[in-house]
Amino acid sequence: MIGAGSISFSLDLLMDLWLEKGLKKSSLRLMDIDAARLETLEKLIRRYREECDIDLDITFTQDRAEALRDAQYVICAVKVGGYGPLEAERAIAERRGYYRGIGDRVSCYYGGIGAFHQLDFFLSLARDMEKCCPAARLIQTANPVFEGTTLIQRMTSVPTVGVCHGHFGYRELCRAIGVAEDEVEVTIAGVNHCVWLTRFVKRSSGEDLYPRLDDWIARKAEAFWASPEFQDPEVAWRWEQLSPAAVEMYRYYGSFPIGDALRSAAPWWFHTSLATKQRWYGKAGGFDSEIGWSQYLAEKARKLERITALAEDARVRVSDEMPVHASGEQHIGIIDSLENGTPRLMELNVRNDGLIDGISADAAVEVPAMVDRSGIRGVRVGAMPDKVMRHVIEPRVNRMEQVLRAFREGDRHGLLLTLMDDPRSVSLDAARGLIEELLAQPWNEKARQHYR
Amino acid sequence: MIGAGSISFSLDLLMDLWLEKGLKKSSLRLMDIDAARLETLEKLIRRYREECDIDLDITFTQDRAEALRDAQYVICAVKVGGYGPLEAERAIAERRGYYRGIGDRVSCYYGGIGAFHQLDFFLSLARDMEKCCPAARLIQTANPVFEGTTLIQRMTSVPTVGVCHGHFGYRELCRAIGVAEDEVEVTIAGVNHCVWLTRFVKRSSGEDLYPRLDDWIARKAEAFWASPEFQDPEVAWRWEQLSPAAVEMYRYYGSFPIGDALRSAAPWWFHTSLATKQRWYGKAGGFDSEIGWSQYLAEKARKLERITALAEDARVRVSDEMPVHASGEQHIGIIDSLENGTPRLMELNVRNDGLIDGISADAAVEVPAMVDRSGIRGVRVGAMPDKVMRHVIEPRVNRMEQVLRAFREGDRHGLLLTLMDDPRSVSLDAARGLIEELLAQPWNEKARQHYR
Repeated sequence: MIGAGSISFSLDLLMDLWLEKGLKKSSLRLMDIDAARLETLEKLIRRYREECDIDLDITFTQDRAEALRDAQYVICAVKVGGYGPLEAERAIAERRGYYRGIGDRVSCYYGGIGAFHQLDFFLSLARDMEKCCPAARLIQTANPVFEGTTLIQRMTSVPTVGVCHGHFGYRELCRAIGVAEDEVEVTIAGVNHCVWLTRFVKRSSGEDLYPRLDDWIARKAEAFWASPEFQDPEVAWRWEQLSPAAVEMYRYYGSFPIGDALRSAAPWWFHTSLATKQRWYGKAGGFDSEIGWSQYLAEKARKLERITALAEDARVRVSDEMPVHASGEQHIGIIDSLENGTPRLMELNVRNDGLIDGISADAAVEVPAMVDRSGIRGVRVGAMPDKVMRHVIEPRVNRMEQVLRAFREGDRHGLLLTLMDDPRSVSLDAARGLIEELLAQPWNEKARQHYR
Repeated sequence: MIGAGSISFSLDLLMDLWLEKGLKKSSLRLMDIDAARLETLEKLIRRYREECDIDLDITFTQDRAEALRDAQYVICAVKVGGYGPLEAERAIAERRGYYRGIGDRVSCYYGGIGAFHQLDFFLSLARDMEKCCPAARLIQTANPVFEGTTLIQRMTSVPTVGVCHGHFGYRELCRAIGVAEDEVEVTIAGVNHCVWLTRFVKRSSGEDLYPRLDDWIARKAEAFWASPEFQDPEVAWRWEQLSPAAVEMYRYYGSFPIGDALRSAAPWWFHTSLATKQRWYGKAGGFDSEIGWSQYLAEKARKLERITALAEDARVRVSDEMPVHASGEQHIGIIDSLENGTPRLMELNVRNDGLIDGISADAAVEVPAMVDRSGIRGVRVGAMPDKVMRHVIEPRVNRMEQVLRAFREGDRHGLLLTLMDDPRSVSLDAARGLIEELLAQPWNEKARQHYR
């Protein structure tokens, strides 16, 4: 696991691994450049091993080559440079009239201008894998998953699958209409952070559940949006899947957006100000508003603090405080299915190769995928609904291509052209000024050299 | 010929026909709904026949079915409703902050919001052809050629080829570098009004001529742009091909834009005001500025007036005043090559079918095409330069898809979503207000019914 210093996420996957019977004899190497984080993680794991019956061979290392050597699977969960530079870049962009910064709505994840740091890292990791563990599969879960997975698949020989959990948002829809989630069959498809519920039926009867969703919208949505539950600014971003934004996008495009699509694939006029975001996403203005995002960062910090304290606190059993439980993430399940043949229908980012019509063969699409000993095989989706395709997916795929082209060519002017498509760009000079200021930041030295 | 009331254009094609030896026995039906225009044309043609040795069977009719019956070729040169409504719609849009109106830069041609009137006409014409002359080929030269040709090819069984003359702009480049145009080989490709010079070589030696163009730019362009010839506001729009806009676009995208691409495929920030347009296109601000476009309309009016007077003036020989000459248009050449096998390499809009990578098979691309008795066969271009593809062609193809989808579905909201991509759209309400006002115009009654 590369980027194992994301302690909470690492623990999630470790617990999945401990719970997966067929993988109990695994050897695991946890790698991060942050020695302190790694040490905390080591302490915690030692405690779990003392308290529970866990039989895993675990190594901790700051050396990437050592971590990769002859690995069978590599999980990448890296956010280069952490969140500090990203927040600083957002502030710079806001001073120049770009509310909440530039890039995708989930730019909070994207590692700054042109997604340079993340893409550059992905490529260097994959190149190392080609040398150190040429047979290994990369489970690529760091953002941007769409650009990153596509880049690695195009430019390296590493078999790569992109993993996200946003698609689980459909469970909120099940709850809204009162159908148990294991009673439904869904097809959710598109590209990462831009996925749509193209099929929503009851497994037993084949009943189309969209009419029930329409009914919820017609009879219950307004009351829900007025409820303290939805309007509580402390948790409001948790309800994005049932927000007015979701319903309006469904009205626009004829297909329900799922998970991160609620923000990333929303039209620009949902995001022009906090007041606008509050109208669409509830009182916190959604996950990526100044309120929602601050909550998220604060919660992350609190969680890290708590975990770090726990690692040092000999008076408690960590497995009582944080019991071993399934995380719900897909990463370990992929490995189990591939290694032990347990068939799983998952939602993964794979090379398109005709799974979705009208998207190039070598772009990574997010689709249902069958995983078993034969490998990871995307399920053919065919045509996406036409309006979603024309107004959302095609422009998003085009932006991916622009980002990857600028990265591949080191073309600063390409960054500028992409920024000029931002509706808030008023002139070439102003946009160029922003790009120059961003690239002039000390943490962007490498990006500045790269984009000529 | 449908829309034969475009007298000047009809005369151009008639002269081509008279000059084409292999087509001297043709029967021709000239159709228009405008009886007066048709009568003027009839008078002129009678005079030419008296003065010159012209052996063509020509019928004039206002009845489309009669014109189409058992035709072998149909040339469509229709602009539904003329220019009046278009100018009125432009004024409405300008009052709402959209300088020079909405739609494509060549929106002057596009028949108003959603290109409805043109697309609706094309489809009804093609449907009539399916009934009246199922074996005929449609030579589709009315704008929008890209949307129109694609629409007809997708929705009808009529074999259709789109014809434009914009690509001849490369001849200006030949003149600039001092190489005779018949000594060069070019590949010009893309989609109509968005074509690029991807190959520019000397036929005899294979010498790449782009370095000579670079040399002209480095050493002569500035002087040319300062010259009275370029800066004369009365003719300046004629020099668009050698304008600062052309050179800047070449710098941006690495490939030279040709013909109408100079305007239509230029970035939005070339078109924000008359002053901006003058900086890029010379003192008249280019063909579609208020100056250039007024000149064009005035010239059209003068020409029509002169032709009409000539038709009535028994004292002169019309063939002295307007001698029979080759127009340089491709329409008649297509027919000659198909009928008589004279091989011609032309520049035509055909179903893509893999000619250009990354564009769907059923979109009309503008490419070199071999025309002979075997038919019209596009020459495979392969990959367009990546930066042009990502930043210009893909977004343009996507807009075509949006326009055709909204038309096919009669989806007013689709028009709105497309308008919201216009960088001048500031809010949904404002954009909706503009669409409603446009659709409320009396000439848009049918469009208002269509887009629900």
